[in-house]
Amino acid sequence: MNEKNIMAYETVDFDEQESAIIIIDQTKLPGEVKLLHLKEQQKMWQAIYLLQVRGAPAIGVFAAFALYLAAKDIDADTWDTFYTPFHEAKEYLNSSRPTAVNLSKALNRMEQIAIDNKDKSITEIKALLLKESKEIKTEDVWMCRRIGENGLTLLKDGDGILTHCNAGQLATSKYGTALAPIHLGLERGMNFRVFCDETRPLLQGARLTAFELIAEGVDTTLICDNMASQVMKNGWVNAVFVGCDRVAANGDSCNKIGTSGLAILARYYNIPFYVLGPTSTIDMNTAKGEDIVIEQRPPEEVTEMWYKQRMAPQGVKVYNPAFDFVDNELISGIVTEYGIARPPYTESLKEIFRRKEDAQVFKHYL
Amino acid sequence: MNEKNIMAYETVDFDEQESAIIIIDQTKLPGEVKLLHLKEQQKMWQAIYLLQVRGAPAIGVFAAFALYLAAKDIDADTWDTFYTPFHEAKEYLNSSRPTAVNLSKALNRMEQIAIDNKDKSITEIKALLLKESKEIKTEDVWMCRRIGENGLTLLKDGDGILTHCNAGQLATSKYGTALAPIHLGLERGMNFRVFCDETRPLLQGARLTAFELIAEGVDTTLICDNMASQVMKNGWVNAVFVGCDRVAANGDSCNKIGTSGLAILARYYNIPFYVLGPTSTIDMNTAKGEDIVIEQRPPEEVTEMWYKQRMAPQGVKVYNPAFDFVDNELISGIVTEYGIARPPYTESLKEIFRRKEDAQVFKHYL
Repeated sequence: MNEKNIMAYETVDFDEQESAIIIIDQTKLPGEVKLLHLKEQQKMWQAIYLLQVRGAPAIGVFAAFALYLAAKDIDADTWDTFYTPFHEAKEYLNSSRPTAVNLSKALNRMEQIAIDNKDKSITEIKALLLKESKEIKTEDVWMCRRIGENGLTLLKDGDGILTHCNAGQLATSKYGTALAPIHLGLERGMNFRVFCDETRPLLQGARLTAFELIAEGVDTTLICDNMASQVMKNGWVNAVFVGCDRVAANGDSCNKIGTSGLAILARYYNIPFYVLGPTSTIDMNTAKGEDIVIEQRPPEEVTEMWYKQRMAPQGVKVYNPAFDFVDNELISGIVTEYGIARPPYTESLKEIFRRKEDAQVFKHYL
Repeated sequence: MNEKNIMAYETVDFDEQESAIIIIDQTKLPGEVKLLHLKEQQKMWQAIYLLQVRGAPAIGVFAAFALYLAAKDIDADTWDTFYTPFHEAKEYLNSSRPTAVNLSKALNRMEQIAIDNKDKSITEIKALLLKESKEIKTEDVWMCRRIGENGLTLLKDGDGILTHCNAGQLATSKYGTALAPIHLGLERGMNFRVFCDETRPLLQGARLTAFELIAEGVDTTLICDNMASQVMKNGWVNAVFVGCDRVAANGDSCNKIGTSGLAILARYYNIPFYVLGPTSTIDMNTAKGEDIVIEQRPPEEVTEMWYKQRMAPQGVKVYNPAFDFVDNELISGIVTEYGIARPPYTESLKEIFRRKEDAQVFKHYL
């Protein structure tokens, strides 16, 4: 297996017959494409902890399947004898990456299904858990596809797109968020030229984004983060597409460190800058970017090259924030599964949520 | 020996008794501080070629001493028997890094001294060559010191300074260019807080700039290039100081890749952005930045970590320019040994050269 056929595999696949979750071990990319068939809870916990599976949406889907498999193996006839080990299994999985919101969201949703149906037989509860885990994945694919559809309206065939970090297929069940329009466009015979920031310090752009785009045959050029200005000056970039980790109510968008700088460069060179992400990352309770606490990561990520060779002198201080936020005034649009929000975001993001509520009400009449 | 006393050593030292050039092997930094005592021409050629000595001014000084040592060993009584091997030695040294302007400038200047004095005895010519090589170094130290003095007028005690790549002591005989105000300020009891971009792909900021600043006890923080925006947003940067490889007549300044992006960020955050360099890097025959051809470097610098572990998928294209240029409108001032040029540069750079000519005329009356 090599990168040429990797996209035939899904980031998180569930094999019901085998009772296994199948993932691509992302810690081995791009050097090796290795599929893991995970059947034991401990191995699943490790897969999240060790970043073998990563990307908030992908982790959520993975955890839902994992919790179903835990439930399936519980030998119990009554709710009380079932619930105690089930809840323990949930807490165990939840401890693998405590800060990932999608992880706890998916696990809570699974637990709620069980609790809501506690009067049913354990066999029925297990069947409902399987159905729910599949639905979480289906919703993830749908969400990415809708983001792709909406984002694609911003592009034309042959466009040059610059992206940062990995908000692609490898971070979700399919399509990705920032990369969804590119994957979807490709399905429709369009071609794009993509510039990937390598994304220091952890090189997700070099290792993952370049990998998944090359695998689909996209014209992909890798650059160091500090080369983005020159690439834009050359006139090669028609739009910047980035993902997001949290969007504040005013549109300030938190994403991988380096994103705010890109937005400033895009403004200088008059290039539209788009943030793409599901409505689940928009936090209307966070008023503005300054209210988001930025995670600080270990200095060794910067000073050591994959912990093998130290590249900086002893005694140097290191500032290693994982994220930064983009001032809303620099963002041309925020692309979600319910449409594109445009400035002023304080209004347009509310409209996105009204559409989402309408869609959910409508769902009940189907 | 460790980084704590490294600054007691000079980047390029000449030992007359030993007939050796002593350098710090910069390929070993920051892991190891190793002094090389070079006595053979082949070893000197390699030192330049392998980047054991680097930085345009340092290479110039090094080459002058190297050519003197070659001349010293020529066993000849007449100009004709002297000049042929002398010229060969010069051409040999010049072939070590053909694109470095300071290298050929220093070697031409040495050769000219010999030619101008061809009627003197070979012993006298050798003495004049020694004197000239020492003068090239003295001028380099003077030039850096003047840039330091001029740059220091732009700073106050406690300021935060962001810099890119290495335009420091390790690139010149002493003080450096962009870092000269910091080293000089330190001698006067001032303290600064310096942020070093690591400077991908070759990490000169992490390996060299952080090293020489730490060695002098400067409060030094290493960041990935893509973190500069966040550091500026935090309000930690009072000024950006960078070196230059070539300055066009309109002030457009070519420097290590990533510099143009920094200038755009500085403008966005209202932080003054200064280019520091000797008048020898100002090229009045180049009208504007677009006229400068940007060197493209090997893809492996980006895809391989020190040629050990590949970090990007096979088949990915790489864009790896060594330099970019900063639009003159983004530059607050160009700091030279003859003062600070301010916009509009088309006028102010001419004034700098008038001052330089005045100083040289004046020199003859000393």
